[in-house]
Amino acid sequence: MKDMTKTTREYVHGYSEREHRRLRDQSQTLAGLLHNDTIYPAGSHVLEAGCGVGAQTVILAKNNPQSHFTSIDVSPASVNAAQAAAARAGLTNVTFQTADIFNLPFSGASFNHVFVCFVLEHLKQPGEALRRLKSVLKLGGTLTVIEGDHGSTFFHPRSDAAWRTIQCLIDLQAAAGGDALIGRRLFPLLRDAGFRDVTVSPRFVYVDASRPAWGDGFTHNTYIAMVEGVREPALAAGLIDQPAWEKGIADLKASAGPDGIFCYTFFKAVAMIT
Amino acid sequence: MKDMTKTTREYVHGYSEREHRRLRDQSQTLAGLLHNDTIYPAGSHVLEAGCGVGAQTVILAKNNPQSHFTSIDVSPASVNAAQAAAARAGLTNVTFQTADIFNLPFSGASFNHVFVCFVLEHLKQPGEALRRLKSVLKLGGTLTVIEGDHGSTFFHPRSDAAWRTIQCLIDLQAAAGGDALIGRRLFPLLRDAGFRDVTVSPRFVYVDASRPAWGDGFTHNTYIAMVEGVREPALAAGLIDQPAWEKGIADLKASAGPDGIFCYTFFKAVAMIT
Repeated sequence: MKDMTKTTREYVHGYSEREHRRLRDQSQTLAGLLHNDTIYPAGSHVLEAGCGVGAQTVILAKNNPQSHFTSIDVSPASVNAAQAAAARAGLTNVTFQTADIFNLPFSGASFNHVFVCFVLEHLKQPGEALRRLKSVLKLGGTLTVIEGDHGSTFFHPRSDAAWRTIQCLIDLQAAAGGDALIGRRLFPLLRDAGFRDVTVSPRFVYVDASRPAWGDGFTHNTYIAMVEGVREPALAAGLIDQPAWEKGIADLKASAGPDGIFCYTFFKAVAMIT
Repeated sequence: MKDMTKTTREYVHGYSEREHRRLRDQSQTLAGLLHNDTIYPAGSHVLEAGCGVGAQTVILAKNNPQSHFTSIDVSPASVNAAQAAAARAGLTNVTFQTADIFNLPFSGASFNHVFVCFVLEHLKQPGEALRRLKSVLKLGGTLTVIEGDHGSTFFHPRSDAAWRTIQCLIDLQAAAGGDALIGRRLFPLLRDAGFRDVTVSPRFVYVDASRPAWGDGFTHNTYIAMVEGVREPALAAGLIDQPAWEKGIADLKASAGPDGIFCYTFFKAVAMIT
């Protein structure tokens, strides 16, 4: 959900204020599930590649006050927003920089660890990105990658109409060169990029009526908001017509209702270089 | 994967020796993931409804040596097989009985706990089954339900052909009155049957090349074997032609190979009556 492509126009979710709010909502709800086990040894130098508007930066830097983060993004506007978010959070252990994963302004073996979250899904060459990041890692360092997988989505009540709205997002992301279903293939991606000891740990999100905070925070404000975010481009590209879109979104919203169930899987991988 | 329908002919997986072996393979691999947290207080009387060939019975009874199990199934042949499996395992805390969930030969409030695994998916009236089971539970007792959800399946490499073979199984199960995607809706099913404090805990199976025991035991010997088990009825019903079937199975097998990823979600629910 951040942009590491060359031109910011390709970023499927756009750069609106509403989208910034969505990314912050998302990070609040998911923080525990995705990030609680990312704790670096004191004194670590960590590269966060693709920090976006700083949603993960703030969590990581708070969870690791004894480490220093260098957080980069290819979009200057996102870097500015991330810097402001870090300042609001009172963080002093992050340095921000506008930079491109494919043209890293660091010498080899500059970092103890690298962290990449919701970035590879947007890249045409995720394997090459991993190789570039590997080149700035010290021996014995770790790479942590977190990605979603929209193909892991399922819900109740079942609805083909709802699925078609999700498919619009998948198709638009593919048209931009990305892969919204990349989560499932982190293991071969990391292994083929030359990493060792690749360990993938899926993070399954399950929401029913007994978990209203997740229904609001994840199903509604994160996932459905993400799908709704591609309404205009999906209609403009002729991927779907307006009545089908409205029906699909209404059905998706039912999955966050009192009889609804919503399931989604994130994948977190940790790999070493040796 | 057991039959509680009125006639055994409706059971989608059939009753072959190969199928019995598959059910035993499956229970070995999944035992830890699905059953390790089902521990009853000493002295409990537990009804296992739909014991099938005893795959789960053996695990449950071993994990709970101080409890007594009454294990029923609508198929006399399955009950015989289950009884033999329990004898081979040296179990003395299980009583077997041929009986139908919809016509239970027990008086009200006979059991401290009820356990149902891979049964509701085969029933035309799963909600009614839950109400019947509730009627033989003592106040304060628990019902534990475990079901799969074939719609939760996803894998790498992606393949529409592979998906079509899975869809054959889903369609055949639906034609027999069942629902191979029932796992996701355990929460509303239990709540609407009058249970309280329903807690659903998804059990996510993730298999990559670093987990060969799961690739063999689950992806290949359990899941793909299950799909392959409906080859003849799927072809006979005209749901798919033979070349498409072979291609789909070959693609599914690639998901258990060195570059493959396989994901599946089971749902376990525990509910109370008060």
